[in-house]
Amino acid sequence: MTSLVSTRRTSDLSAPESITELVVRDVRFPTSRQLDGSDAMNPQPDYSAAYVVLRTSAGDEGHSLVFTIGRGTEVQVEAVRAFAPLVVGLAAEEALADPGAFSRRLGADSPMRWLGPEKGVAHMAHGAIVNALWDLRARRAGQPLWLHLAELSPEELVALVDFRYIREALTEEEALRILRRAEPTRSERIAELRRAGYPAYTTTPGWLGYDDEKLVRLSRAAVAEGFTQIKLKVGGDLQTDRRRLALAREAVGPDVRIAIDANQVWGVEEAIAWVDALHDFDPYWIEEPTAPDDVLGHAAIKRAVAPVKVATGEHGHSQVLFKQLLQADAVDVVQIDASRVAGVNENIAILLLAAKFGKPVCPHAGGVGLCEMVQHLAMFDYVAVSGTWEDRVIEHVDHLHEHFTEPVEIRAGRYVAPVGAGAGGRMLADSVRRHEYPDGPEWQVGVISAQERGDR
Amino acid sequence: MTSLVSTRRTSDLSAPESITELVVRDVRFPTSRQLDGSDAMNPQPDYSAAYVVLRTSAGDEGHSLVFTIGRGTEVQVEAVRAFAPLVVGLAAEEALADPGAFSRRLGADSPMRWLGPEKGVAHMAHGAIVNALWDLRARRAGQPLWLHLAELSPEELVALVDFRYIREALTEEEALRILRRAEPTRSERIAELRRAGYPAYTTTPGWLGYDDEKLVRLSRAAVAEGFTQIKLKVGGDLQTDRRRLALAREAVGPDVRIAIDANQVWGVEEAIAWVDALHDFDPYWIEEPTAPDDVLGHAAIKRAVAPVKVATGEHGHSQVLFKQLLQADAVDVVQIDASRVAGVNENIAILLLAAKFGKPVCPHAGGVGLCEMVQHLAMFDYVAVSGTWEDRVIEHVDHLHEHFTEPVEIRAGRYVAPVGAGAGGRMLADSVRRHEYPDGPEWQVGVISAQERGDR
Repeated sequence: MTSLVSTRRTSDLSAPESITELVVRDVRFPTSRQLDGSDAMNPQPDYSAAYVVLRTSAGDEGHSLVFTIGRGTEVQVEAVRAFAPLVVGLAAEEALADPGAFSRRLGADSPMRWLGPEKGVAHMAHGAIVNALWDLRARRAGQPLWLHLAELSPEELVALVDFRYIREALTEEEALRILRRAEPTRSERIAELRRAGYPAYTTTPGWLGYDDEKLVRLSRAAVAEGFTQIKLKVGGDLQTDRRRLALAREAVGPDVRIAIDANQVWGVEEAIAWVDALHDFDPYWIEEPTAPDDVLGHAAIKRAVAPVKVATGEHGHSQVLFKQLLQADAVDVVQIDASRVAGVNENIAILLLAAKFGKPVCPHAGGVGLCEMVQHLAMFDYVAVSGTWEDRVIEHVDHLHEHFTEPVEIRAGRYVAPVGAGAGGRMLADSVRRHEYPDGPEWQVGVISAQERGDR
Repeated sequence: MTSLVSTRRTSDLSAPESITELVVRDVRFPTSRQLDGSDAMNPQPDYSAAYVVLRTSAGDEGHSLVFTIGRGTEVQVEAVRAFAPLVVGLAAEEALADPGAFSRRLGADSPMRWLGPEKGVAHMAHGAIVNALWDLRARRAGQPLWLHLAELSPEELVALVDFRYIREALTEEEALRILRRAEPTRSERIAELRRAGYPAYTTTPGWLGYDDEKLVRLSRAAVAEGFTQIKLKVGGDLQTDRRRLALAREAVGPDVRIAIDANQVWGVEEAIAWVDALHDFDPYWIEEPTAPDDVLGHAAIKRAVAPVKVATGEHGHSQVLFKQLLQADAVDVVQIDASRVAGVNENIAILLLAAKFGKPVCPHAGGVGLCEMVQHLAMFDYVAVSGTWEDRVIEHVDHLHEHFTEPVEIRAGRYVAPVGAGAGGRMLADSVRRHEYPDGPEWQVGVISAQERGDR
C-alpha cells in the first residue's frame, strides 16, 4: 500500500529531474471463463489493460491504464509506446506544474493525431499518459486525485482544458463561472463525501451470460446491499429481455431503478421499437442504444422513448462528441469513462460541458480499474463542478478490484471516498506480473488450455 | 507490371484454397525533407503506409495500404496484424465470393471493435484488409476495380453494405433504387470515362511550406496542364493566407476554382471569421474547417460561409459520421478517402448516402497511394451510383506515384481510367524493400542523418 507522503529518492540534487521512462505492459485477465462482462456486443471478453508507468529520475512513478477486452491489447500497448519520444526526457517539474500544456503537447503531435484524430487507440494512449502524470502529481501532493483536483482554483482548472473545438458551446468565461459558483461550498461537500460516500449502482446482476437464477439472486443481493439502481444487459433476444426484466423487476420491487444497456447493437428505429417493447418493466435509462457516434440518432431515440432516459458516453471518443450530444439534446445522462478520452483533462472539459447544459454525469465503470479511476472524477464533479449528486450514480461492478493498491470500497450502495494518494489506477506489482500476456504464469499451459489460448 | 489474367499456381487441386498469410510492413518515405505535404496541422509529414498483403494457398496476392504520416505507422502495422487470427485459414473462394460477409466478420470482432469502435487504427486496419481482398478479386477477374464494381448487379452491391447504423437514412430498397436508376446507362458512362477520363484538381501548388514564387509557378503550371481547380492550404496566419490567395487568384485568373483547406485547425467561430476574411478571393470550398467529427459545427459553418462551400470527409471515420453530415445538411462536398474507413464496402455505403442526399463526392487523395486507390471509387460512383461527374473532381497530388505498379495518369487535368487489373494500391516490390522502416536502405545512416532519424 502507498504511504500518503511519497518518498523521492533524488540521487543527484543538482540535475533537474526528468521523466526517464514510459513503460507499458500487456495485462490480461481470463474473465471470459465465467462470462463475467458478457453483453450483446461483447460475448466473451477477457478484461485487459495496456498498463502504463511514467518514471522520473527521482525514482517516482505515475501509473495508469487503458481498459481493453483481450486480443488487440498489443495494439494499444504499441500506441502508448509511440508517444515515448514526446515524453521521455521532459523536465518532470514542468510537466507536473502544467498538465494542460503536457496534454496539448501530446494532442498536437501530428503523426499520432493522424491515427485518430482524437479517437481510437492513439487518443486512449494519450489519455493514459496524462492520467499517469496525474497519478504522480496526486501522490506527490499526498492526496487522492478527487481531492487534489477539488482544491485547484477555477483558473487552474480552466487552464487544463483545450477549448479550441468546444468554445462555441462553452467559453473559458462560462467555465470559470460554473467553477466559481461551486467554490464557496466545496468544503461542505468534501465533508459530506467523506461522511456518506458517493451513490453507486451495480451491473453485477445483469450480464447477458448469467442464467435466470443467478440474475434473480444477484438482483436481490444488490438491493440487500443498499443499491437503489441495478443494470441489465439487453439486446440479444426480445423475449429473453422481457423475461429477464420481469424477473429482475419482481426481485427488486417497484422502487429500485433498473437501467438497461444494449451496448450499441441496434439501429435507430430498432432501438425505438425494442425499448418500447420493454416499457412495461419501467426501465430507468436505455444505455448505448446505437452507434456511440450517432448524435442525431441518439436525439431521435431520446425523443421517441421518453420518459425512458437515454444514456451514453462510455465509447464517446472525445469532447467534440459530448459537446454535440449536449447541443443536440441527444442524451439525458452523460457517461464518462476514465480511459476512453485523453485523460483527466478532457474529462474535466466534458464535466464542464455537462454542467453548462444541466445534464447529470453517471460514469461508466467496471472492466479492470475503471471503478478505481473514474470515482475520482465523479467526486471532483460533485465537489467543484456540478455541486450535486442528485440523479447521479457511479457504475459499480464487483470484479478484479483485488488487483489494485487502492481497491474501491462500497458501503451501503455507495462508493467510499478514497483517502489514499493517487489517481486509483495502480495495480499490485504481482498482479501485473502474473497476468502479463502472453508470458505471465496465468497464461501458461496448465493454467489455461491450449484450445482456450488459441481462441484469444 | 501485372498481366490482365492472373496465374494461379495451385499446387494441390484437391485441397480447398485458403488465405494463408496476412503480411504487413512499415513503409516510410522521407517527404518532410522537401516540405511536400505540409499544412497547418501537419508541418513535416513523412508520407508512410502500413502496407498489407493477403496471400492465398494458390499463390495469389491482394495488396493494399493504410496511409500514415511517419511516426506511429508501427501502431497501424500492429493493428493490421491483430486481425490475422480472423483472416488466416479462411477459405479464399468463400471470402472472395462474399466480401460483405468478410467485412462484417472483421467489424463484428468484439475485442478489435473495443479499440474503436469503428474508428482509428483498428477500423483502418479492417479497411486495408477488405481492400486487399478486393485487389485480389479484381485481379482474378482481370479488371480494374472501378470496372469490376461497376459490373456488379444492384443486388450484389447492396449486399456489400452494412445497413445497421444507417438504415433510418438509407434503406436497402432506396439503395437498390439508386443503383437501378443508373444501371441502364452504365455502358455509356464506361465508354465516356475511357474516352475522356475523370475530372481532377491539383493540390500540388498549395502546400503551406512552399514560398510565393513556387506557389505562383505551380499554380500557372496547373492551369497550363488543364486543371480547372487548384487547392491552397490555409490556416497558419491570416495575412499570409490573404497574400497567397491573392497571388494564386492572379496566377490562375477568375475562372479557375481555388479550394482552400484548413486541415481542422479552427474552432467553429474562428472558421467562420477566417473564411469571411478570405472572401475577396472567391474561394470555391473551405475544406476541413474544424474537427472532422463536428457535424453540428460544420452545419453552423456551412450556414455562415455560403456561397463558399464546405467540404470534409478525409478524416471522416465511418459511415455513421457521413450519414449525419448529410442528415444535418452540414456539407456541400463529400470527401471520401480510400484508407480511412473500413474499405471499399463502407465507401460504397457513403457513395450511396451521398447520392440519396444529392451531394457530390470529391475524393481526398495524395499521400502515398491514395490517388491510385480512390480513383476507382470515384469512377465506380460515376458509372453505377450518382451517374454524373458534374461538380465532381478527384484530388491529385504529384508525389510518389513512381512507386506503384499502376501509377495514376493525368491527361489534360483528368484522371485516365485505369486499365490494369486490381484496386490500385500495389507498390513495386523494390520500393517497399527500400523504404521499409527502420531497416530499409533509404533509412540507413549516410542516406539520412542521425539527427533527422532521431526526430521521427
